[in-house]
Amino acid sequence: MLLDALKSAVLEANLATVRSGLVTATFGNASGIDRDSGTVAIKPSGVPYNEMTPDQIVAVSLDGALIDNRMKPSSDLDTHLVLYRAFPEIGAVIHTHSTYATIFAQALVPIPPLGTTHADYFRGAVPVTRHLSEEEIRDRYVAATGDAIVEVIGDRDPLEVPAALVASHGPFVWGRTPQDAALNALILEEVARMAWSSMMLRPALPAIPDALLDRHFLRKHGAHATYGQTGATR
Amino acid sequence: MLLDALKSAVLEANLATVRSGLVTATFGNASGIDRDSGTVAIKPSGVPYNEMTPDQIVAVSLDGALIDNRMKPSSDLDTHLVLYRAFPEIGAVIHTHSTYATIFAQALVPIPPLGTTHADYFRGAVPVTRHLSEEEIRDRYVAATGDAIVEVIGDRDPLEVPAALVASHGPFVWGRTPQDAALNALILEEVARMAWSSMMLRPALPAIPDALLDRHFLRKHGAHATYGQTGATR
Amino acid sequence: MLLDALKSAVLEANLATVRSGLVTATFGNASGIDRDSGTVAIKPSGVPYNEMTPDQIVAVSLDGALIDNRMKPSSDLDTHLVLYRAFPEIGAVIHTHSTYATIFAQALVPIPPLGTTHADYFRGAVPVTRHLSEEEIRDRYVAATGDAIVEVIGDRDPLEVPAALVASHGPFVWGRTPQDAALNALILEEVARMAWSSMMLRPALPAIPDALLDRHFLRKHGAHATYGQTGATR
Amino acid sequence: MLLDALKSAVLEANLATVRSGLVTATFGNASGIDRDSGTVAIKPSGVPYNEMTPDQIVAVSLDGALIDNRMKPSSDLDTHLVLYRAFPEIGAVIHTHSTYATIFAQALVPIPPLGTTHADYFRGAVPVTRHLSEEEIRDRYVAATGDAIVEVIGDRDPLEVPAALVASHGPFVWGRTPQDAALNALILEEVARMAWSSMMLRPALPAIPDALLDRHFLRKHGAHATYGQTGATR
Repeated sequence: MLLDALKSAVLEANLATVRSGLVTATFGNASGIDRDSGTVAIKPSGVPYNEMTPDQIVAVSLDGALIDNRMKPSSDLDTHLVLYRAFPEIGAVIHTHSTYATIFAQALVPIPPLGTTHADYFRGAVPVTRHLSEEEIRDRYVAATGDAIVEVIGDRDPLEVPAALVASHGPFVWGRTPQDAALNALILEEVARMAWSSMMLRPALPAIPDALLDRHFLRKHGAHATYGQTGATR
Repeated sequence: MLLDALKSAVLEANLATVRSGLVTATFGNASGIDRDSGTVAIKPSGVPYNEMTPDQIVAVSLDGALIDNRMKPSSDLDTHLVLYRAFPEIGAVIHTHSTYATIFAQALVPIPPLGTTHADYFRGAVPVTRHLSEEEIRDRYVAATGDAIVEVIGDRDPLEVPAALVASHGPFVWGRTPQDAALNALILEEVARMAWSSMMLRPALPAIPDALLDRHFLRKHGAHATYGQTGATR
Repeated sequence: MLLDALKSAVLEANLATVRSGLVTATFGNASGIDRDSGTVAIKPSGVPYNEMTPDQIVAVSLDGALIDNRMKPSSDLDTHLVLYRAFPEIGAVIHTHSTYATIFAQALVPIPPLGTTHADYFRGAVPVTRHLSEEEIRDRYVAATGDAIVEVIGDRDPLEVPAALVASHGPFVWGRTPQDAALNALILEEVARMAWSSMMLRPALPAIPDALLDRHFLRKHGAHATYGQTGATR
Repeated sequence: MLLDALKSAVLEANLATVRSGLVTATFGNASGIDRDSGTVAIKPSGVPYNEMTPDQIVAVSLDGALIDNRMKPSSDLDTHLVLYRAFPEIGAVIHTHSTYATIFAQALVPIPPLGTTHADYFRGAVPVTRHLSEEEIRDRYVAATGDAIVEVIGDRDPLEVPAALVASHGPFVWGRTPQDAALNALILEEVARMAWSSMMLRPALPAIPDALLDRHFLRKHGAHATYGQTGATR
């Protein structure tokens, strides 16, 4: 992929999170990666969304070396890089403070799969990371945040659980492309909102049956997906 | 009814659910039927709403045979067909994942009639279907979903309870016309939102008195309706 | 006041409730009265708000006789007339199904004065009417609704408590003018929303101290009001 | 700073609170101060936001003497003046009735630091003032409100806790500039909304660890701030 196309896709994913109401002020950041060249493109730090241009998107290598040096990258860059190195299947990462996903992160409660809306995009609960130690916070906060996400995903396929909630912070979401990750971030927020209200209405609500979870997830993802006009995965 | 007019009305009902905030992403689908010819028109699968045109609306027969073959129909088509075959009074079906109706569906709690807003459109509680068996999920998921709706409506008049909540999934709503069904879907969401908050404020809240329920429902529906400029049913 | 000016003010009050998000579909109705001539102007029944014109506003006398006969008046007309006859101080009445005020009406819980936002407009709790008897519902439902409101206001000054919640139904709000009533309807909804959430956060929350309630109400209302550019009552 | 520039910045901060959905009707007011001349500019009382012009912003001295006399200043002026005299670090004050911050004020519950969104802007809980005595309410209500805020901030740095909730009333927020204060008011509301929902989901939720609180606050504020393009404090 040409770097300009990557930057445009990353800018668009950043703006999509704003249009969807997932970010307030300058919170949040989206990045994408070109796996062939190993180039990551990410939002600059603290730039207002309505003034952001494609050439302000910052390009870095997978180990964080700046490729073009005009702007400072997002202060969460190291978290993104950890995820790209640990999850070779993914092509984009988005971090937001979207309201309901953040509420679960603050309450340290995983988002359980309570309905087919959840199952259409997440094959099981969206987990919450452990709290970092004081040493981790002091010495390598941003990278350690990524490590905690990788740790909590564990053996699960990151494309089957394309999000995790960082404890007391907010969601990190990913996908095959910036567009996919932006859609996952939007769905995560809606799923969190509905889970919250369902749990308030009926506190001990169990997760949906596995057969229903799999039916819905596999309808939209994987080799046997049937949803949409192509009949293959979206 | 001419097929073109049916397709336009179905497109409009699909777009009305988006304008009313009842659908996120490509969730949801609306269909309508011309009872004279037995033709059902339904949303295509996975097409973005803002790009949808009348000629993309898919026409099928009541047993699901494609009449015009350009696009794949909504993956929920078989649920719609079961409802049209079981409920000859209805002319349109809409499925959404609207937030509060879905919350009740996820919590497996029927929406009780707690006020006259509910009673104006639904003559009693909006029921929740049973969960499907593993066999039903595996072998005939979409049609079995329709069967479960028909089962839970039972002896009630489907035009007096023009909606059901599919367990762990979301609402299916219907009406005499696509326009009626779209209005019912909008009212259902508002009624669910108010019921949720009323139940949170006062958990053991009883349903409204039958006399009040009937007074409001019959004011707007049936031979003796008095609401609106015609004095007859809307 | 000229009838045309009254009709325009009533239309504007109806549209203001829509713009403020207080009504869904064709729910709700606003009226105003010219006390000199005893003419009441009210929304027509079941007309979509976006098509409503001043000449569709229906004029009736205080005992309900139609003055100009083009359109059917709102089906809630008799409730409005009871209020105008019982409360000579008021010049406008608005009925909505606004979400949080209706939630309290459905839960049969008065809205307690929990903050100065409430106290700025309502000098004490907004009460809930009793349920009507089956006979009242059958024989004179709409007028009996008005009687129940008058009964629950009792000895209080209707301009100090310019709203009541009809049990299991929704709010009726009034004011000196259609513009006042529309503002009271908007504030009532916001006050109800905040009261609901405050009560969820801290269930046994007491009402605010009387001295604070009076300080705020009298700052904006009555002979000694100090708010705004005139220094007199608004 | 020229008075015209101050008035424009104050008008803009007032309008920003409206655009952000923090105020309903004519609630709320923003002011700013030019420390060199000791001039405070504040919103006029009861003027609709959509008609407000820079020359309607009222200029007064730090002890409340009118500098230009066209309009009556906000009825909350004396609270603002108390804050400017007590907190020499601040350059702007904003008062709103924003929904969730007001909910905590009404419930008399401080907003605890439950996440990094909070910690990015507030270094600890946002406190609630005590109730005023009847004497204070009667004799010097508006200034006493300011005194109660100063009292509850106590020894804390007002730029580290740039807000307090006035009991049964709503938030006062401040900052170095009108723009800062408007951002703090917006973040406070979002932080309150998320805290409310987190506390509903998990009632006995503890505050976030101090190390995490400090990491986030100091990332955006003070001599060692690293956020944004300058690397210094914003």
